[in-house]
Amino acid sequence: MNMTFVLFGATGDLAKRKIFPALFNLFTDNKMPESFSIIGLGRREMAHDVFQKQVEQSIETFSRRKAADRAALDKFLGAFRYSALDVNRPEDYTKLLELVEQREKELNLPQNRMFYLSVGPEFFDVIASNIKASGLGSTSGWKRLIIEKPFGRDLASARELNEKLSKSFTEEEIYRIDHYLGKPMVQNLEVLENANPVLHALWTNRYISNVQITASETVGVEERAGYYDTSGALRDMFQNHMLQLLMMIAMQLPKESNPEDVRNKKRMVMESLRPLQQDDISSQIVLGQYGAGEMNGKPVPGYQDEPGVAPGTQNNTFIAAKLWIDSEFWRGVPFYIRTGKRMAEKSTRIVIEFKDPLDQPLRKVDETAVPNLLVIEIGPKEGITLQLNSKDPKHEGKFEPVYVNCFSSLEDMPEAYENLIHDAMRGDGTFFAHWNEVELSWQWVQPILDAVEKGELPLHTYPAGSYGPKAAFDLLGDHVWWLDNDTSNKQSKGEAAYANTTA
Amino acid sequence: MNMTFVLFGATGDLAKRKIFPALFNLFTDNKMPESFSIIGLGRREMAHDVFQKQVEQSIETFSRRKAADRAALDKFLGAFRYSALDVNRPEDYTKLLELVEQREKELNLPQNRMFYLSVGPEFFDVIASNIKASGLGSTSGWKRLIIEKPFGRDLASARELNEKLSKSFTEEEIYRIDHYLGKPMVQNLEVLENANPVLHALWTNRYISNVQITASETVGVEERAGYYDTSGALRDMFQNHMLQLLMMIAMQLPKESNPEDVRNKKRMVMESLRPLQQDDISSQIVLGQYGAGEMNGKPVPGYQDEPGVAPGTQNNTFIAAKLWIDSEFWRGVPFYIRTGKRMAEKSTRIVIEFKDPLDQPLRKVDETAVPNLLVIEIGPKEGITLQLNSKDPKHEGKFEPVYVNCFSSLEDMPEAYENLIHDAMRGDGTFFAHWNEVELSWQWVQPILDAVEKGELPLHTYPAGSYGPKAAFDLLGDHVWWLDNDTSNKQSKGEAAYANTTA
Repeated sequence: MNMTFVLFGATGDLAKRKIFPALFNLFTDNKMPESFSIIGLGRREMAHDVFQKQVEQSIETFSRRKAADRAALDKFLGAFRYSALDVNRPEDYTKLLELVEQREKELNLPQNRMFYLSVGPEFFDVIASNIKASGLGSTSGWKRLIIEKPFGRDLASARELNEKLSKSFTEEEIYRIDHYLGKPMVQNLEVLENANPVLHALWTNRYISNVQITASETVGVEERAGYYDTSGALRDMFQNHMLQLLMMIAMQLPKESNPEDVRNKKRMVMESLRPLQQDDISSQIVLGQYGAGEMNGKPVPGYQDEPGVAPGTQNNTFIAAKLWIDSEFWRGVPFYIRTGKRMAEKSTRIVIEFKDPLDQPLRKVDETAVPNLLVIEIGPKEGITLQLNSKDPKHEGKFEPVYVNCFSSLEDMPEAYENLIHDAMRGDGTFFAHWNEVELSWQWVQPILDAVEKGELPLHTYPAGSYGPKAAFDLLGDHVWWLDNDTSNKQSKGEAAYANTTA
Repeated sequence: MNMTFVLFGATGDLAKRKIFPALFNLFTDNKMPESFSIIGLGRREMAHDVFQKQVEQSIETFSRRKAADRAALDKFLGAFRYSALDVNRPEDYTKLLELVEQREKELNLPQNRMFYLSVGPEFFDVIASNIKASGLGSTSGWKRLIIEKPFGRDLASARELNEKLSKSFTEEEIYRIDHYLGKPMVQNLEVLENANPVLHALWTNRYISNVQITASETVGVEERAGYYDTSGALRDMFQNHMLQLLMMIAMQLPKESNPEDVRNKKRMVMESLRPLQQDDISSQIVLGQYGAGEMNGKPVPGYQDEPGVAPGTQNNTFIAAKLWIDSEFWRGVPFYIRTGKRMAEKSTRIVIEFKDPLDQPLRKVDETAVPNLLVIEIGPKEGITLQLNSKDPKHEGKFEPVYVNCFSSLEDMPEAYENLIHDAMRGDGTFFAHWNEVELSWQWVQPILDAVEKGELPLHTYPAGSYGPKAAFDLLGDHVWWLDNDTSNKQSKGEAAYANTTA
């Protein structure tokens, strides 16, 4: 589908690090249209060839693959043009329209126009309305808008933003990137369940005890302190990425599904997510902030001492939550979610703990038995692990857990942005955040925001380099967070210590 | 349980390679009784200390672990005594009884006596009856007999042998070693199923398509030609090891079971095994003999050209069989068994192929989808593999099989003989071949023996280094033998080629 790709923020960091390399890799894989025009936009003036040189440098520095030969690279770079644009100046959009149309004529392109807004969310509105006003959006082909979080900072502001955008683009034309949805293992979740009878058979609350979704980072706030200190783990990670992972693992797709099914099923998950009642918030939500601690044997400062953070800030850098989906399918299966900075390991994973539906708890049969776990590693490595009980081979009559592992030995995996940009170009909205989901997520999170605002939620400190505050372990009651290396938390709950096997 | 261990054939090969090392490793693991006497028997005269020196050399050469210190080794060797014995001379048994009693007195041992017959089966009868006649078997404690295959060479001779033995030992006192039952992964089969809800849930003919049991050897007939040429794969492997594996995987044990349950459930499997009708034999049984071929790139001779093999021999070195268990549980699930010499790889494994009970064959959904497989590697490596379908990470919308692997990283595993001798000393008959099983196995095999005798079964030639004759692949109809590296067989059946992943 030949097209024009208009990139706002073409001199920015995301463009250099992710978008240009993604476009280049799609080009290398013959996934770009046969004929395409790419127009980069930035505030300052720049000659086309200087811009092309910048794109080339970005590919050299950040692309997972380099150009096979000069001719291929030149062909790719030749599609790029640059135009200076002040997002507030209507005449700049007119100039842009001229360039777009000129290239459409030169390359004999249909008027298919993709607008990628790689700019701060405060500019989404003005850009979208100028696209409409200038006539850029009046195409004889299709037009699409790609934007990325944050989509508002609470329910009201998200609704306001969406209302503004919807004056220029329909919901079907808006592709909201949540880059977690571009990760190969997340895109694999439904296939795992639907294309594998053995997993399909187990996919029921008869067998599933609980589902744990963890996204832990080892980094601290780094250079994003200004933004992060007003956002926190709740807005930065939980409302979007974590709830999206929840939807992806919890939705029930038919075996052959289309993007519309995905949109509907995700909405149904959010609609079934039991709302937090005022009294539940403190028993279902744990907020934390990292204090000073150790990472890799070296002392690191606490959040309050990070540069750029407001003195005495009560911002959260960790959140753990216990959620219930009030559907027949997930009845009685708690979902546990946690995410935080400065934690002991970098890992995004989903753990499904199975129960024994027929008998007493396994521990009654043998105290050395452990639950069966299906561990889906989303990042930084991809992998699927099944924890089984096996006989102790030393012939002592005890069980020992064995880990049935698979790490796809895949170098050279497409990055999230490649998958997502490719999907947007094809008009496939499956792996994007849809407005309903965004709205329902904010709606679910809003009572937490309110409680934080009123100072009703305690903020637990946890040492940098740990697995989070103790309260996050207590949150699980009789369950435990699986695969934490930190044995102290489990021992305090009378649990045996299981070493992390994914190392 | 303090005791005396009487070893017939103490100067033989099995004693040196397996039995002494097994006893020593049990001793090292504190699994020998606190106090014990070991008496070795052989034809020629030998001083006790010379025999002890032989035992020491056997440990140095063949034990998986060496002695930690001299004192421990000396303590172990100090338990050994030797007596010359001609199995046919009653007075030698009287002399043996004197030695046994003398040591029982010296070591203050109860009259618990284990008789291990590491001798040819032609001596089982005479030894057992002399044990009885001499009074060796008239103990105030327990007496037990350990013997090893062959238990007869057809149904009649097996019954005859058993009748003779039963005059001196009850069935409960006889421990028939099938060393396949001593392998850790075989002993693990019931645990895998019963201690893992996820496998238990799948353990039904609703999900299992077929079960494949393979024991392939790369070696040829080697120095055993004389015995093997009159026995063949049918008697040497199929009637005992292969049918024992069938019983172990097919029996349905309650979660908490005892040796008596195992004995009963194995018998029930054999009783449900659909007998071969005259007309079925040639469509359910494939016999083969290896011809000249290549192993590791080097030419090797065919069976007929092996030294020690009778000219023009029609002996089988390969057998494949299709079996049905006529029980409610296994209704509609074929069991495929094959074993042979000079095959492409050395492997003993059980593959369980799952079906999709709800839908069309997976291939209808996506032709790149493959069935889910549970692969239990029994040897030479232990391991459990689950083959799942995953999304092609290159984002092409195809499936690719992923292999969820576990290889127990277990150095230093107890050998089969350690496990089995230990069990016999404890009086645990779980992992031994019981008379019912032996009898029923011969009964099932007898029609094949008869057909061979009458020349009614074709003998297919297969090249050394292959996966067996083509007829063995045709035997499976729409199914395929999984994990064969040899792609030609599968391609000839229109199947995609799946590389062996256990390498």
